[in-house]
Amino acid sequence: MPNKEQNQQWLEQHIERVAHFLEQNMPMAETTPAVLHEAMRYAVLGGGKRVRAALVYAAGEAAVQNAELSSAQIKALDHAAAAVELIHAYSLVHDDLPCMDDDELRRGRPTVHVAYDEATAMLVGDALQPLAFEFLATMPIAPALVIQAVAALAKASGSLGMVGGQAIDCASVDKHLSLEELRQMHRMKTGAMLEVSVLLGGIVAGASSPVRQRLTEYAQAVGLAFQVVDDILDVTADTATLGKTAGKDAADNKPTYVSVMGLEASRQLLAELKDQAHKAILPLGNGAQSLQLLANFIVDRNH
Amino acid sequence: MPNKEQNQQWLEQHIERVAHFLEQNMPMAETTPAVLHEAMRYAVLGGGKRVRAALVYAAGEAAVQNAELSSAQIKALDHAAAAVELIHAYSLVHDDLPCMDDDELRRGRPTVHVAYDEATAMLVGDALQPLAFEFLATMPIAPALVIQAVAALAKASGSLGMVGGQAIDCASVDKHLSLEELRQMHRMKTGAMLEVSVLLGGIVAGASSPVRQRLTEYAQAVGLAFQVVDDILDVTADTATLGKTAGKDAADNKPTYVSVMGLEASRQLLAELKDQAHKAILPLGNGAQSLQLLANFIVDRNH
Repeated sequence: MPNKEQNQQWLEQHIERVAHFLEQNMPMAETTPAVLHEAMRYAVLGGGKRVRAALVYAAGEAAVQNAELSSAQIKALDHAAAAVELIHAYSLVHDDLPCMDDDELRRGRPTVHVAYDEATAMLVGDALQPLAFEFLATMPIAPALVIQAVAALAKASGSLGMVGGQAIDCASVDKHLSLEELRQMHRMKTGAMLEVSVLLGGIVAGASSPVRQRLTEYAQAVGLAFQVVDDILDVTADTATLGKTAGKDAADNKPTYVSVMGLEASRQLLAELKDQAHKAILPLGNGAQSLQLLANFIVDRNH
Repeated sequence: MPNKEQNQQWLEQHIERVAHFLEQNMPMAETTPAVLHEAMRYAVLGGGKRVRAALVYAAGEAAVQNAELSSAQIKALDHAAAAVELIHAYSLVHDDLPCMDDDELRRGRPTVHVAYDEATAMLVGDALQPLAFEFLATMPIAPALVIQAVAALAKASGSLGMVGGQAIDCASVDKHLSLEELRQMHRMKTGAMLEVSVLLGGIVAGASSPVRQRLTEYAQAVGLAFQVVDDILDVTADTATLGKTAGKDAADNKPTYVSVMGLEASRQLLAELKDQAHKAILPLGNGAQSLQLLANFIVDRNH
């Protein structure tokens, strides 16, 4: 088992890696139209946990098991990691708009529509989406794998995935959801993008069908755990630690795991999901160390 | 030369063809989340000129010159035609929002945020984008061509294409633009998507590089002509004929060809562009008949 310090180092290295790729490959802030490009960079390069990017890299490592990734595969992982971060960033920019969650703080800084204006925030989100697909389309791996990646990201981010979950979330304010309905909403809203991050790592690394199956089980457990942690933190953490407004879901009367199951049962569910995630990738051996690390990181985070 | 009736028939058949494909292949209105899917269908299936789709089909026909398109190529043209219509439809939904153009009428019906609400309109646009890339990713042609198509659509619809042009347009209200700045804005805002429609037809049909060059010249002339016609109609047509609010650009103090060059010079520019478009595709012979027809249709339309 690697020690805690090595784990931390792996995570920091890969956060740095995707940030560097984005920094270098997004249009520069001086490129016309300059305000749009500056705002796109503000939305994407302002930090964040980069969990999705880290999942792409970790799944790529796990999928080749004890072999080494080729330099083309490593480059392709950069593209895929950047793509999922772009989709995630665009969804935050649009979610924060007044017609949606109307939030003014994100990652401890003013949201895009506050720092710029609503029209710019809308266009920033609209322009980050195709850039994500462009990054996938230029991955230096077999064309058939590139196409699988494009199709997977499109599905995960669309009306049957992330945006669909967002629509259900909007419609559920002031409503009682059953545990099953809540789970379905989060599976789409947050889970789909976390799952596709893991899947993209597997696709780039040419994972076999049984390995993809292991990765999918892991991703489903981690995706659900991610949301349960978010719901717990919304009631237990403060705004400064979160970098976004705490207690927002409760104030907005949105159903959460904590409101539906209670705090203790939510914590117990979390422990079970962590266990499931670890068991799913046991057969992948040592190559799955980074995935193990990320499961722990996601469950044990405090923001 | 085919007669006017045959032309009209070709256009109607292909408008019907893409409408049928979209009708069958977009998520059904009953699929969860039902309101989102119903609103997506409202945005896309409510008519429209389908010029971009028609350009995809016509360019595909022209690119194979006197040969016949295979059934796989014809299917792939359906996917590509649907994809450009989805991107166009999403851009209209977002442009009509209060934080952008704040328009209540589109194609003679209430805009999406009026018929539903702003949050739904935002999510409709956000979900139509990935669906467009999914349609491209599932084209039954050589993977290398699929990837070219994805990359081309991503570039045309992003911050260096359509969305970038929209950002420049927003920033130009109350400003004086030179003719060159105006041309650059429209090249991005409207031209990029019209051009990529023609290019996608060429890609699907496996066009050689010289044929792609002919198609690009045609598309650039037609793209510019399209905007000049729009600007002329904004001052000469009435709201009922247009299906959207007439005189809007003048009222919003937006620079247009008519405001920069005057009406007569705009009409003369239009005649030149029509001529350029026809000359560009002369070397492609009879297969380019539908492209000829579309150049005329775009220039001579009254809405």
